[in-house]
Amino acid sequence: MRIVDLILAKRDGHELPAEEINAFITACTAGEIPDYQVAAFLMAVYFRGMTAAETAALTLAMANSGATVDLSAIPGVKVDKHSTGGVADTTTLVLAPLVAAAGVPVAKMSGRGLGFTGGTIDKLEAIPGFRTALSGGEFLANLGAVGVAITGQTADIAPADGKLYALRDVTGTIESIPLIASSVMSKKIAAGADKILLDVKTGSGAFMKTPQDAVRLAEAMVAIGARVGRETMAVISSMDEPLGLAVGNSLEVAEAIDILAGTGGAPELREVCLTLGAHMLVLAGRAADFAAGYAELDALLANGAALAKFAALVAAQGGNPAIITNRSLLPLAADRHTVACPESGFVQAVDAARIGYAAMLLGAGREYKGQQIDLGAGLVMHCRIGDKLAQGQPLATLYTGDPAKLPVAAAVLRAAVAIGPAPVARARLILGTITAASAHLAE
Amino acid sequence: MRIVDLILAKRDGHELPAEEINAFITACTAGEIPDYQVAAFLMAVYFRGMTAAETAALTLAMANSGATVDLSAIPGVKVDKHSTGGVADTTTLVLAPLVAAAGVPVAKMSGRGLGFTGGTIDKLEAIPGFRTALSGGEFLANLGAVGVAITGQTADIAPADGKLYALRDVTGTIESIPLIASSVMSKKIAAGADKILLDVKTGSGAFMKTPQDAVRLAEAMVAIGARVGRETMAVISSMDEPLGLAVGNSLEVAEAIDILAGTGGAPELREVCLTLGAHMLVLAGRAADFAAGYAELDALLANGAALAKFAALVAAQGGNPAIITNRSLLPLAADRHTVACPESGFVQAVDAARIGYAAMLLGAGREYKGQQIDLGAGLVMHCRIGDKLAQGQPLATLYTGDPAKLPVAAAVLRAAVAIGPAPVARARLILGTITAASAHLAE
Repeated sequence: MRIVDLILAKRDGHELPAEEINAFITACTAGEIPDYQVAAFLMAVYFRGMTAAETAALTLAMANSGATVDLSAIPGVKVDKHSTGGVADTTTLVLAPLVAAAGVPVAKMSGRGLGFTGGTIDKLEAIPGFRTALSGGEFLANLGAVGVAITGQTADIAPADGKLYALRDVTGTIESIPLIASSVMSKKIAAGADKILLDVKTGSGAFMKTPQDAVRLAEAMVAIGARVGRETMAVISSMDEPLGLAVGNSLEVAEAIDILAGTGGAPELREVCLTLGAHMLVLAGRAADFAAGYAELDALLANGAALAKFAALVAAQGGNPAIITNRSLLPLAADRHTVACPESGFVQAVDAARIGYAAMLLGAGREYKGQQIDLGAGLVMHCRIGDKLAQGQPLATLYTGDPAKLPVAAAVLRAAVAIGPAPVARARLILGTITAASAHLAE
Repeated sequence: MRIVDLILAKRDGHELPAEEINAFITACTAGEIPDYQVAAFLMAVYFRGMTAAETAALTLAMANSGATVDLSAIPGVKVDKHSTGGVADTTTLVLAPLVAAAGVPVAKMSGRGLGFTGGTIDKLEAIPGFRTALSGGEFLANLGAVGVAITGQTADIAPADGKLYALRDVTGTIESIPLIASSVMSKKIAAGADKILLDVKTGSGAFMKTPQDAVRLAEAMVAIGARVGRETMAVISSMDEPLGLAVGNSLEVAEAIDILAGTGGAPELREVCLTLGAHMLVLAGRAADFAAGYAELDALLANGAALAKFAALVAAQGGNPAIITNRSLLPLAADRHTVACPESGFVQAVDAARIGYAAMLLGAGREYKGQQIDLGAGLVMHCRIGDKLAQGQPLATLYTGDPAKLPVAAAVLRAAVAIGPAPVARARLILGTITAASAHLAE
């Protein structure tokens, strides 16, 4: 196979055989294909798309391009969860111990935040002592002992995806459904779970701006799972405003503990966690149906079992479990500033991406990879879409270690919240589910 | 300007401003843009195309990326001619001295052959002593003294085009009308002519397989000329079978001399030369109309003036002008083989690309750049589409310095000529003309 012929075949809309895709990814991982040919191929994929068979072949080839995790020593059906990313998406911090408390092992590899989206690994590092770089042995040992373990994704997982993603980032080929779908699924497959639950976000703060695009991405990923024998299901959920109230690493850990302890946190964040968790219990064969799973998880929140599992997870990874009762153990920025509502009215819209950007400006996130962040910085929202506010009521509280950052962040935050005279209906939180067999979407 | 933003703008179908295209080409020529970004940009152009304004901006940027030839010291309107390439396209060898004999200066930069197409520089090197690498001073001096000079294109002419073309060749982005058009026109503009006549070939032996594609390419190039102030006109001519009878370097020089001397050669080659030449005379203001130009050139063939100009050109560039009367001075391969017609019938089709490939196999052409060729190798066709042949009549005579090559080349040649029982009408040779003001196409 000449690489230029592979490019031409894709350019001209022909379906590529799995063995050619495999050979391409193998050579690409080995550094045997010049970047310019990979880039041309990616742009041709952007325009031509990929068939389901091609996308599955690409996914498997990338999953097999490096190390793969073997979870077979852990009894039970292992269900992984992945979110396509958003603002104040504290789901994993709640969901992982919650599902583990129900007896379903949760083996999770997570990433760091970039731009306006946060990352679970950054958030966990806000917990004093918490180690996010577990060895393979530690990961399996903790999983066996505690039922849940969370570690940073290492470079030897799906290195082909890492290479392709880096090229896509600089060649204008990020926004391609088959490339996004295969990137996500290759890492999940390499991470070893038996089944996969996807939380595909849609809205102003999500990568997929419209429900239609979110459904297309979800369908592509579910189809990959079906083809490679890893049952996959997707929930489409709204990211038209921040999911939780807190944006920033310590602040989000605190909100997660509030949810787990039943002492606070955004009801929407709690609802998404229970929804995702119930589906995971069904996928794992642990609950008969969604309603049964939901009720069980609700009870585990109420009786403290989920919070106890969180404490066990923190302790097992070197963190201080006392944070569950003493939030002051979490680093928190000293400089605080309340942004007041400039006029009376109803909250028409909250631009989640701008909220995430404001938190990044405060020091909570990264503009570029590898940038140092301030784990104590961020913001807490005091309003949601549909709320009625009087002039001067607080919109949000900003936290930063560098007060010089407050004015610009406050301006960005104010621009993110639209106030108007007309009452606004609250948006639907869960838009639907996609399985290999069926799609259920809200009207 | 971030390069990734330029790629995204093109990917999403936005028109790029001339200054951004200029900055891109400047940075590209300086090696400041990674090849993978250039490759992604080229593939986006393949899918999205370019507007007339973008194409003209790209052309000018590439033309100005290196040295440009200043022909202003030469009196008169300088008209350059470019063919999009074909098989047995010996046009330049006839046309350059013919038009120069009419008093229109011909300053020509030509290239070498690759694949199934030949190159004028290779053909001229078949003439003993002929120098194809003139200095800039020699080129202008010969042009002034003889009225015609032909030299190889140097690497400092439109280096951006050289860089882009090399990348296009390995990234599946050759077949893009705006990229082909800007590549051709950038070199012509840098070469300094006031006006440009294009011979756009269409058919089995041409890059543009259909008249529609040839017209699209011609229109794109004519539009560039109009936008950059170099009047450009295109003739669409057929390359459904080889234009001349000879394919191969010495053999084509011999056929060109036959045409110039009126002693032989394909009437179709003669007709195309007269047609192109007449348009060049009109463009140069040397003839009142096409008919007058045609008649004048016909006379210059008949009275020996064109042949004398060819001899002067050869002598001025160090070649032996005695070749015009003594063809045995041209190198000619010793091994010859006549391919006989396998059955009686009419010639239905002659696949020009396969004929060119057969000549390449015999040693006349290159499979890859820089390959040594056999100037005496090639073939002479003895039939054209529509001819009635009896079994055993010769289809062609093959010439090679390596008799081991004869069997495969003969098989390729036989496969290139389709014989059938039905009489066949001869195809139209000149399909039309395209100017900035109008298109005249044969029905």
